[in-house]
Amino acid sequence: MEICKEISKLLIELRSKKPLVHHITNYVTVNDCANVTLAIGASPVMADDADEVSEMAEISSALVINIGTLNKRSIKSMILAGKKANEKGIPVILDPVGVGATKLRIETSEKLLKEVKFSVIKGNMSEIKILSGLGGKIKGVDSEENTDGGESICKNLALKLESVIAITGEKDIVSDGKRTCLIENGHKMLSCVTGTGCMTASLIGSFSGITKDYYMAAIGGICVMGIAGGKAFCSLKEGEGTGTFRVRLIDSIYNLKEKDIIEGGRLNEIQC
Amino acid sequence: MEICKEISKLLIELRSKKPLVHHITNYVTVNDCANVTLAIGASPVMADDADEVSEMAEISSALVINIGTLNKRSIKSMILAGKKANEKGIPVILDPVGVGATKLRIETSEKLLKEVKFSVIKGNMSEIKILSGLGGKIKGVDSEENTDGGESICKNLALKLESVIAITGEKDIVSDGKRTCLIENGHKMLSCVTGTGCMTASLIGSFSGITKDYYMAAIGGICVMGIAGGKAFCSLKEGEGTGTFRVRLIDSIYNLKEKDIIEGGRLNEIQC
Amino acid sequence: MEICKEISKLLIELRSKKPLVHHITNYVTVNDCANVTLAIGASPVMADDADEVSEMAEISSALVINIGTLNKRSIKSMILAGKKANEKGIPVILDPVGVGATKLRIETSEKLLKEVKFSVIKGNMSEIKILSGLGGKIKGVDSEENTDGGESICKNLALKLESVIAITGEKDIVSDGKRTCLIENGHKMLSCVTGTGCMTASLIGSFSGITKDYYMAAIGGICVMGIAGGKAFCSLKEGEGTGTFRVRLIDSIYNLKEKDIIEGGRLNEIQC
Repeated sequence: MEICKEISKLLIELRSKKPLVHHITNYVTVNDCANVTLAIGASPVMADDADEVSEMAEISSALVINIGTLNKRSIKSMILAGKKANEKGIPVILDPVGVGATKLRIETSEKLLKEVKFSVIKGNMSEIKILSGLGGKIKGVDSEENTDGGESICKNLALKLESVIAITGEKDIVSDGKRTCLIENGHKMLSCVTGTGCMTASLIGSFSGITKDYYMAAIGGICVMGIAGGKAFCSLKEGEGTGTFRVRLIDSIYNLKEKDIIEGGRLNEIQC
Repeated sequence: MEICKEISKLLIELRSKKPLVHHITNYVTVNDCANVTLAIGASPVMADDADEVSEMAEISSALVINIGTLNKRSIKSMILAGKKANEKGIPVILDPVGVGATKLRIETSEKLLKEVKFSVIKGNMSEIKILSGLGGKIKGVDSEENTDGGESICKNLALKLESVIAITGEKDIVSDGKRTCLIENGHKMLSCVTGTGCMTASLIGSFSGITKDYYMAAIGGICVMGIAGGKAFCSLKEGEGTGTFRVRLIDSIYNLKEKDIIEGGRLNEIQC
Repeated sequence: MEICKEISKLLIELRSKKPLVHHITNYVTVNDCANVTLAIGASPVMADDADEVSEMAEISSALVINIGTLNKRSIKSMILAGKKANEKGIPVILDPVGVGATKLRIETSEKLLKEVKFSVIKGNMSEIKILSGLGGKIKGVDSEENTDGGESICKNLALKLESVIAITGEKDIVSDGKRTCLIENGHKMLSCVTGTGCMTASLIGSFSGITKDYYMAAIGGICVMGIAGGKAFCSLKEGEGTGTFRVRLIDSIYNLKEKDIIEGGRLNEIQC
């Protein structure tokens, strides 16, 4: 498949360029985000103080903003860093974790969407529905909905916000408004480890650091996480569970080969 | 044993109901708390900003408050969330990490006990002695005392605070003032991995989300951690140590079967 | 080798004394710092609120300050805790993570060096060059320079600041101004896991908690990380990568034997 070949080429390029990916993210999964960024071949940096985020964003190749554990201090930093990245043409990725669960998360997401132009916004079905103004059932930070019918929601929000939108779930959907792609890699055990969504945003950030085609960058990040999740699951032996799965997930990303993507990527561009 | 069967039934119920467990906790072990909550079958959410904690507590089935890395901002949030949970009848678990090491931790614990009604308070021997006004030797966040003689301390504090009290150590003790239970599962390697105490509080929170009998919930959380710790240790091979043990601990909780509890639980209710 | 024997003796002493090591550190790698401190046999405590850091520092055997995710609140706490530690004769270790990447990190490092006397300062080549006023190329928090020619830079900064200076990289260098030692253990995979530098500072802090010879303490911490890194790498099987490496690194530190240091330590004191 042509698109799988293109993703595998981007992976080679990513590993050669080692883009610096600045994260303003939550304190729950931040270590995993750093390790997954290293595993794919990029270089992570985490900094969230208002006094340094603009400078850090400016020297980075991509900025990932994740609202998992928001506070006033970090919201201010997200806006500052996002604006600076916009000014310098550096891609910004948004992971609106748990939007809909509280007013603070809704208002912060609205503020971010107003003040910052995002290259990619990635969420679960409920989060993307909420950003679309369509309701959406969220339980803490987890979606209570499957991705059925997500294709048109994804496309419409992409057109409205002029961003690439990615919905992750049993089936993943990426759209830039013109092109829409379904990704059917992944494994349900990915939802039994905290932070696999956050890590996916880090992977999208890593790909976005080396291509201006953010639609492909989003597909690349999601597809790598999905293929690695499948490989990690297959490697499990009797008695092993989510602890070992999480370790093997990082192993699988670190060891991912071009042919894993070319032969294993289940990517289908659709009309919708 | 009757009590082991009851715990194993609660585990089945927990996995079916997947209660949402809100944590306001420290940034050292927060990722492990999230992963252990997922491993037992519940759903974790971490949020600590004063602008959203009341809303998050309100939609949750249990709230876990851990003072491991306190600051003014989080103390305020703990009080707000705790009061809201009390108002809504949602159980609140306290893990008074390192109380006694500094004035801030003592004063914060006193404030929390005054303002919030806790369903379960879980600490090591020194922490529970300090909350009981009996002194207690703490070294940073670790107890320097064993649990000998802890039964009456546990029972008395339970009667005084009208909470379930749990003391963890080589031998664990749980009391609601009327009933007192000794738990002799566990393995000393659990003290060589950071956060196993915090994770135990997450497990207690998970059980508390599905039963009003918080005495059984506390026994359930502690007994699961102990049995899983024993299984994790037994799985270690030559050359493996605390890194692998930590991974297997999560695996063991994820894979825990009813019969592991029924056959492996070393629970004894005592008179004291 | 005499120096390897001395380090191995310090390790035995460390495990027997279990020094309490207070960390004011970043939220990215804090869990790994706690686990590595436990793995070597010391006892970690993390506390960063201005209202308790002085008390916590005072009861500790060493204080580790790491500027990886700075903010106004933590900077204040670093100064307070550092001053208290100085007053009480407790060693303070500085890990100036990413200094040079932003003004905030440069100014904070300058302020820390002015207000607090450090027993050991450990950084990568770029960080130590920047502290020496020699420029230095930093990419986020990673050095873009190798350690060639680092011996004299290390010695000169040690003389200037009257601290032990440690430069970590492919080859590590430690100097107290009079003695200078090269350490050629380690493995390049250590740079593919986040926080191995921070963990090294925790190990140096652990050794500093039991000897006043901070030059030996710095060598001890770096040499343990290097030998363990080598053992962790050698243990990897087909399909394993940085996820498993990180787990085995902790295993290797936990299981490290005297003879691993005596036979495996590649330490050479040089004239420079």
